[in-house]
Amino acid sequence: MSLDKFFNQSLSRWMDGTGSENTVVISSRMRLARNLGDYPFPGRAEPKQLDEVVQQVRRWWNIGGLEALGSVNFMAIKELSPSERQALVDKHLVSPALARHQQGAVLTNQEESVSIMINEEDHLRIQALLPGLQLDEAWRMASLVDDQFDGSFRYAWSPQQGFLTSCPTNVGTGMRASVMLHLPGLSLTGQLGNILATVTKLGIVVRGLFGEGSEAQGNLYQISNQITLGQSEDEIIEALNRLTLQIIGEELKARELLKQRDPDGLSDRVWRAYGILAHSRRISSREAMELISALRLGLDLKLIKGIPPRILNELIVFIRPGYLQKVFDRELQAEVRDSYRAQLIRERIKISESGGDTNV
Amino acid sequence: MSLDKFFNQSLSRWMDGTGSENTVVISSRMRLARNLGDYPFPGRAEPKQLDEVVQQVRRWWNIGGLEALGSVNFMAIKELSPSERQALVDKHLVSPALARHQQGAVLTNQEESVSIMINEEDHLRIQALLPGLQLDEAWRMASLVDDQFDGSFRYAWSPQQGFLTSCPTNVGTGMRASVMLHLPGLSLTGQLGNILATVTKLGIVVRGLFGEGSEAQGNLYQISNQITLGQSEDEIIEALNRLTLQIIGEELKARELLKQRDPDGLSDRVWRAYGILAHSRRISSREAMELISALRLGLDLKLIKGIPPRILNELIVFIRPGYLQKVFDRELQAEVRDSYRAQLIRERIKISESGGDTNV
Repeated sequence: MSLDKFFNQSLSRWMDGTGSENTVVISSRMRLARNLGDYPFPGRAEPKQLDEVVQQVRRWWNIGGLEALGSVNFMAIKELSPSERQALVDKHLVSPALARHQQGAVLTNQEESVSIMINEEDHLRIQALLPGLQLDEAWRMASLVDDQFDGSFRYAWSPQQGFLTSCPTNVGTGMRASVMLHLPGLSLTGQLGNILATVTKLGIVVRGLFGEGSEAQGNLYQISNQITLGQSEDEIIEALNRLTLQIIGEELKARELLKQRDPDGLSDRVWRAYGILAHSRRISSREAMELISALRLGLDLKLIKGIPPRILNELIVFIRPGYLQKVFDRELQAEVRDSYRAQLIRERIKISESGGDTNV
Repeated sequence: MSLDKFFNQSLSRWMDGTGSENTVVISSRMRLARNLGDYPFPGRAEPKQLDEVVQQVRRWWNIGGLEALGSVNFMAIKELSPSERQALVDKHLVSPALARHQQGAVLTNQEESVSIMINEEDHLRIQALLPGLQLDEAWRMASLVDDQFDGSFRYAWSPQQGFLTSCPTNVGTGMRASVMLHLPGLSLTGQLGNILATVTKLGIVVRGLFGEGSEAQGNLYQISNQITLGQSEDEIIEALNRLTLQIIGEELKARELLKQRDPDGLSDRVWRAYGILAHSRRISSREAMELISALRLGLDLKLIKGIPPRILNELIVFIRPGYLQKVFDRELQAEVRDSYRAQLIRERIKISESGGDTNV
């Protein structure tokens, strides 16, 4: 079975491995929570009212309300198969909550760098998602979408509080800025716990790869601002940017330390990860994430060559259970999933292997 | 560093992967203990007397006493470097005891299928070592050498007891026949303990790869006759042969069971072993033996192709600490040895890999 076509179609912009500081920062995300003043917040609205919100946005989209974004896709959640919904979650385009919502919908642009969730916790959740560290650009993109809506809809907004949201933690700017960081160096040198504890004290939230409540796998951590009230958008972005650069500095120092302390041991870790990923016939999501983390570290440190970082960004999405079911177009039991996952990883790493293993 | 030249030179006949039943039987060995009637047994002889034994054999060899074997090599232990001695042990051509013996010597034919230890526990230990199950042929070869000596030397022999030896367990035929078996199927299905216990009750000795007192690694077991008195050579050989064929039958049944029970799991085990062996940068002898065992099982079951069994037989010798030191021609610390071992395995598996991984 060749998955090339699928792979070529499914790439989201944030996975493409480019962007500033891309050896540590996988992606940057800007999310704006907005509500329409003419309807109750989603938690208090009738299904009929929520449907109306969706229909209003849909009509507006139909007549070109979002044409500044180029070609935009509209998807009503209830019209999607379970595996299509899960794939949207795995690609970080919708939240797990929206994927379960009968009155939910989502708009995405062609490169999937912008997604707009309708009827999640708020009527609108405008999200811009880019590779590497580029919070400013993500803010610019989210802002552009925000302006389009603002020109056609009346937002729930008060001069004292700013944007009104379902949850008080979002009131004010309605903004959550976040970056996804790959921190194997800090993890392997045992410094991660301390750093994350410090970060938390500075009003920054640390989460695993798949948002709130999710466990950190593959040394991937999402950090985001906690405060939305009393700070301007620019201040929020600047604070998160500054902190991110500090963490990047610590991470790169830790990687150097690992290289100096035991170069052979590090190389062994990286190559074993490659050997298993390129050859296993059954692999759990957790083990795959750990090995992908080691392989990525090896690529960043040039201990191994020939695998574009893009491949690994895609893999952390593609190996998720929901995504696998979409790829193979059927419900899969856990053990079968582990076999399919291994197949997918092998094909993916093989495609890009040419020359990868010559540097022995 | 290319090790090709070394590899091509160092192959012993028993490693060549041929012979009957070679998916289970690595090698067959016949050993005859003999003593010269004119000298005390080695344990009671003066160094001067032991030197005389060596000189007598050496002179006889010099004038063509062993020309029936073709070109034969004579090596005095004290003239060898420590790593050369260890390499002889690793190739199963001399015992660890002989390798430490100042008055010891060894004769080997060109293909190293015959070795004759001088002044080990007995004056002469004639050994024939062949790939696969071929005890009869090994007996024929050892017998031929025995006849050559018998024509020129007076053996310590009594009509009542037969050949006299240092240790009473060898008196009579002086023969020890053994086969080295690879039993991953019985091990993985948990049947090995029972089978080995039964075998032991039948008067058969079970040992690890490197003889007496050595631990079984890589699912390799040597089984040999315990009794040397009151049975003819042919009876000893026949009994061992029959038992070996029974064990082979059980082992092959166990492998089939593994294949049926969980084909993906078995395939995964095999391919992971390959992935790690072909890519690791540091590996212990124990781990390497385990993985080589899994890889060999995969080759035998045709789950993986393109690696000749010969390569794996050689590797179980080449990865020994002493052998590594000979290959790289220096004393190596344990950690460095693990790196060199990994390098050696990678080069060896790579040489033979062409086409090996195409069957994905």
